[in-house]
Amino acid sequence: MGETVKVAVDAMGGDNAPVEIIKGAVLAAQENADLLIYLVGDEEIIRKELSQYTYREEQFVIVHTTEIIETAEPPVMAIRKKKDSSLVRALMLVKEGTCDAYVSAGSTGATLVGGQLLVGRLKGVERPPLAPLIPTEKGPALLIDCGANVDARPSMLVQFAKMGSIYMENFAGIKNPRVGIVNIGAEEEKGNQLVKDTFPLLQNCPEINFVGSVEARDIPAGAADVVVCEAFTGNVVLKMYEGVAKSLMRTVKKGLMSSLRSKIGALLIKPALKDVLKTFDVEQYGGAPLLGLNGLVVKTHGSAKANEVKNSILQCVTFKEQRINEKIRERISTQDA
Amino acid sequence: MGETVKVAVDAMGGDNAPVEIIKGAVLAAQENADLLIYLVGDEEIIRKELSQYTYREEQFVIVHTTEIIETAEPPVMAIRKKKDSSLVRALMLVKEGTCDAYVSAGSTGATLVGGQLLVGRLKGVERPPLAPLIPTEKGPALLIDCGANVDARPSMLVQFAKMGSIYMENFAGIKNPRVGIVNIGAEEEKGNQLVKDTFPLLQNCPEINFVGSVEARDIPAGAADVVVCEAFTGNVVLKMYEGVAKSLMRTVKKGLMSSLRSKIGALLIKPALKDVLKTFDVEQYGGAPLLGLNGLVVKTHGSAKANEVKNSILQCVTFKEQRINEKIRERISTQDA
Repeated sequence: MGETVKVAVDAMGGDNAPVEIIKGAVLAAQENADLLIYLVGDEEIIRKELSQYTYREEQFVIVHTTEIIETAEPPVMAIRKKKDSSLVRALMLVKEGTCDAYVSAGSTGATLVGGQLLVGRLKGVERPPLAPLIPTEKGPALLIDCGANVDARPSMLVQFAKMGSIYMENFAGIKNPRVGIVNIGAEEEKGNQLVKDTFPLLQNCPEINFVGSVEARDIPAGAADVVVCEAFTGNVVLKMYEGVAKSLMRTVKKGLMSSLRSKIGALLIKPALKDVLKTFDVEQYGGAPLLGLNGLVVKTHGSAKANEVKNSILQCVTFKEQRINEKIRERISTQDA
Repeated sequence: MGETVKVAVDAMGGDNAPVEIIKGAVLAAQENADLLIYLVGDEEIIRKELSQYTYREEQFVIVHTTEIIETAEPPVMAIRKKKDSSLVRALMLVKEGTCDAYVSAGSTGATLVGGQLLVGRLKGVERPPLAPLIPTEKGPALLIDCGANVDARPSMLVQFAKMGSIYMENFAGIKNPRVGIVNIGAEEEKGNQLVKDTFPLLQNCPEINFVGSVEARDIPAGAADVVVCEAFTGNVVLKMYEGVAKSLMRTVKKGLMSSLRSKIGALLIKPALKDVLKTFDVEQYGGAPLLGLNGLVVKTHGSAKANEVKNSILQCVTFKEQRINEKIRERISTQDA
């Protein structure tokens, strides 16, 4: 048995809370005996859900809370006012050092704000980026940042590149990950002011494997392992993935119903198509880490089901085992010394 | 017969020049007798190509040039140095008032720079936006700007919204087109500084039908008819369309070859699938107009074939007939008065 990994789980956050969250927590605990899971939320509800499963009692701690932060609430206000919410209390467990990591399917905004305000940044980190894995033809790539840092500064993007490289090297096992900056052309002179200012900084950064500009067109093909951008662009990239894939598939489905021939064909390809589409689903990789904090903060999709919650919790084990935060701290503070 | 529409066509620009360009010009002339097409490029080559077709001689003028601007050349330098290039001479025909419009499949950069420097802006227009049509589930939408105006100011985006509305109303026949601004959330307080500053200006603009923020996810579904953004975001949106669709389709194809059952199914759906994919191809609508200039400048894809060239030339007829530039001039100068 390895070192115990303590994870604070927001049992009340997300569209499918508490049912799928607690089911996911039980599945994670069954899969990894090193996990000690703090279920944060209404104790009575949590106990009732837990009673449906077989689990080792010593792997769970219940932390009773009375409030819930809704997705639509303005994040800063919610964090400040709802001190006894499951989201805030779960973050506090990481801040106090009781837990190593936090997992929530609740409000993204509150997690971003709370992660920064309550858990706090590692020394030297300017802003914590939210970095989901995205599917590409060459396997998953890290899209960093998709969080709150719109209008970022060049120095932030350099830190995103470094943190992203450490994450992909240690978490996904990609040696010397290729770092690209999202740009509107491959030529060095192209781009907006932010990209033009950031480009030479990345070129002169010996700790990363910078491959230059990456056009949005080449991201799904797998042009880089770490795709660096400020959060506005990151959000557009992430949501275009989702939007184009969904619209295209709806259009294809409609089209296949146009003739008997294609209807029969559609029936035959259905199982294979389903498998294929899964490999191109942005939600398949589970939670996105908010990097550069004093502890790991993981945001899973609001619509997360038990399996995604399980994977998000198991992710915290790898994160701790690979000492990713220690490596980030070392590399970022070296830079600032 | 209507008014003559004179179009300067860069016969030497694009991957398939001069063959497909000249074929497209002949097809356009055959389809519309009001067209007078100036074919700009090497006279000998143009005559040789033309000799393969049946056409009315009075619909064509050949303007001999000796230089060609390559796609990879730095645009500003190319425009300044290659005065006798087909691209520059074609633009000059519009500037001088000899032609109403310009069509080229050549260098995008040189067309953007040359359009602005040589043809010149309409009075009151801050910057000319490049505005391609993109496919959505509800029909084509205008993505404005995908050109050179990265780091745009709020007042420019307001002009893009106005010009885009006029274009979609008059060119695509959409009454009261829905204008949306690309944003990372539907809430009004979200966005980067540019979006936050532009949002209230669009809200207070009585001449457009502003529907608020549009998330990238909802663009392919057809959430707006006029999708406003600065050019960096516009390029990312446009190229994600292309990138996701291509990668998804490559992945689907590979997946369908995985079993005999799906292989047979794939054969049956092939014709229907091909038709469907065409409806989701960003290149289907032909050239993108560079709006707000003293004449119409149309940039077609570098890979354009005869049919796209034909459509781009025919587009110039509609543009003139609908008096789109007069309407832009009226509405933009009213605002600045």
